[in-house]
Amino acid sequence: MEKIEMIHGSGGQATSDLINEVFAKEFWNGYLAQMNDSSVVAGGAELALTTDSFVVKPLFFKGGDIGRMSVAGTVNDLLMRGAVPEYMTVGFIMEEGLPISDLKKIVHSMAKTAEEAGILIVAGDTKVVEGHGGLYINTTGVGFVPVGMEISPAQIEKGDVILVSGNLGDHHVAILSSRMSIENEIASDCAPLNDIVRSMINEGVPVHAMRDVTRGGLATVCKEVAAQSGKTLMLQEEQLPVSAQVKDFCALTGLDPLYMGNEGKLVLVLPEEAAEKALSIMKASHYGEDACRIGHVLRFEEEEEMQIKPDGGELFLKTAIGGTRRLSVLQGEGLPRIC
Amino acid sequence: MEKIEMIHGSGGQATSDLINEVFAKEFWNGYLAQMNDSSVVAGGAELALTTDSFVVKPLFFKGGDIGRMSVAGTVNDLLMRGAVPEYMTVGFIMEEGLPISDLKKIVHSMAKTAEEAGILIVAGDTKVVEGHGGLYINTTGVGFVPVGMEISPAQIEKGDVILVSGNLGDHHVAILSSRMSIENEIASDCAPLNDIVRSMINEGVPVHAMRDVTRGGLATVCKEVAAQSGKTLMLQEEQLPVSAQVKDFCALTGLDPLYMGNEGKLVLVLPEEAAEKALSIMKASHYGEDACRIGHVLRFEEEEEMQIKPDGGELFLKTAIGGTRRLSVLQGEGLPRIC
Repeated sequence: MEKIEMIHGSGGQATSDLINEVFAKEFWNGYLAQMNDSSVVAGGAELALTTDSFVVKPLFFKGGDIGRMSVAGTVNDLLMRGAVPEYMTVGFIMEEGLPISDLKKIVHSMAKTAEEAGILIVAGDTKVVEGHGGLYINTTGVGFVPVGMEISPAQIEKGDVILVSGNLGDHHVAILSSRMSIENEIASDCAPLNDIVRSMINEGVPVHAMRDVTRGGLATVCKEVAAQSGKTLMLQEEQLPVSAQVKDFCALTGLDPLYMGNEGKLVLVLPEEAAEKALSIMKASHYGEDACRIGHVLRFEEEEEMQIKPDGGELFLKTAIGGTRRLSVLQGEGLPRIC
Repeated sequence: MEKIEMIHGSGGQATSDLINEVFAKEFWNGYLAQMNDSSVVAGGAELALTTDSFVVKPLFFKGGDIGRMSVAGTVNDLLMRGAVPEYMTVGFIMEEGLPISDLKKIVHSMAKTAEEAGILIVAGDTKVVEGHGGLYINTTGVGFVPVGMEISPAQIEKGDVILVSGNLGDHHVAILSSRMSIENEIASDCAPLNDIVRSMINEGVPVHAMRDVTRGGLATVCKEVAAQSGKTLMLQEEQLPVSAQVKDFCALTGLDPLYMGNEGKLVLVLPEEAAEKALSIMKASHYGEDACRIGHVLRFEEEEEMQIKPDGGELFLKTAIGGTRRLSVLQGEGLPRIC
């Protein structure tokens, strides 16, 4: 067994061999061991559910691989609702010709990331399709939301502060560099953010809203949050954290870090008085060293002064030279298949 | 917007337009309306989780389409554990060039099937990849298992009876006919089996184990059940229900209905004394009219007589001419991409 062949999708002996030789040894736990159609797991009062398919190309890149991304991405989506990630299902769609050795590396990476994130993989599925050795992974996550926990854009209040957990654009540049065979030191930031989020919640930081910065970049995420909350957000260009290397890369390519995807960063909206505590918790975490304040939610008097509709759900950028630019979600294509 | 283009995968405006114009109107509910990273849903005591990717080709076929399959298949997997299907997530991986009109038909079919099955779609994801208009759908299901409900091969006892809810092979032949442009009246049996399963549970039928007959066919499913239970199962060839049309098709093509996939049939193992009640419930249901008894679990004295290892977890077929054949799971390829 060196490469995925159509026979591995038969549902018969070859599928069973593949599951035993590649997946079972990495993902083994009591739930999967039952090999049933569904896994029955322990339950909670409120469930968070999220699903994501990963189609990133190439499958391996500096700082990560599709496997680590597929676990971290779904874990992060659960965390953003204040949920404790508990269970995950994984679905593999494999193209013929996928080297089994690559698949094993990816599955191992998923197992390691799931362990890091404290999430249990309880059900899986494999399918094989024609193609040229590609791989798509769907992960679906289940988490439990503590009673009374309500983290969503609806909680945002005027005057709230906006923080981000670190540098923008790293994942995007890592994928692009890898695809264009550009040599540099920029690694993807792909990571599960349990430590940052659980620490904040455990220490009682009153988070109003949280989103991970992925496809579409910070501007898209902030514009979506603004629209959902009805509040208007103002970002400060000078405060946006971008590493020197990514800045250089963007200067050369004309890319805008505001619209570039990360896979291990979150943006946080919370009351001014809690900002310092949140920042110090983030900075103390392995994945939050470059956390900083990047903006705030407009107050009523600011909306009046700017002569904009109150509660219009807009997003603005105060530029480095003092102008004010209205930002929308990503228009046009962006880099395809970064996640 | 006529065809899926790479821009629909950007995560920006075009993705948002696609979601609003195609998905939101079909799947709309209070959970999806929140447009958050995860959906938080009401919880229960024990959860059943299952995931499945659907890669069937062609996307439309007599009796169904990939959308109906993707909902029914996951609903059925939940039902097989005795769970009440409650919530579902859907992940779409779309190839460039997929006609939006096809996508709309498929999404509508999913919405209708979800309504029929009483399951709520609470989270979704879309990705676009290069290709030639293909579509893959992942569905992940969450159900609640009533306290004390234990349906699994471990419950199987010697002397139990094996039932199947209807004719074998219909889905397999429908896909194959459609792919080879063979004209016939054979339609896929693709359907959610809530009615059959919930009726049996509500009327107190003591089901020991249940599996839906999919990829790999009845023999593969029964062999897996046998192996998991440690008990040996005996099927009666003469009792296997196959429609006259499928029989003719198999005679011409050399296919074996024992290894052909269905998408709306289940096999049931339960005590002899409950068999008649179960059969009458199935026959009264729209999708179980052709239900019948197809075999039993070997008793100790039968194992002795056959001189086989007791509790060997094997599967046998008593052939129409009186022979006994040992059956294994599907060897080799089967028809690719029937599900």
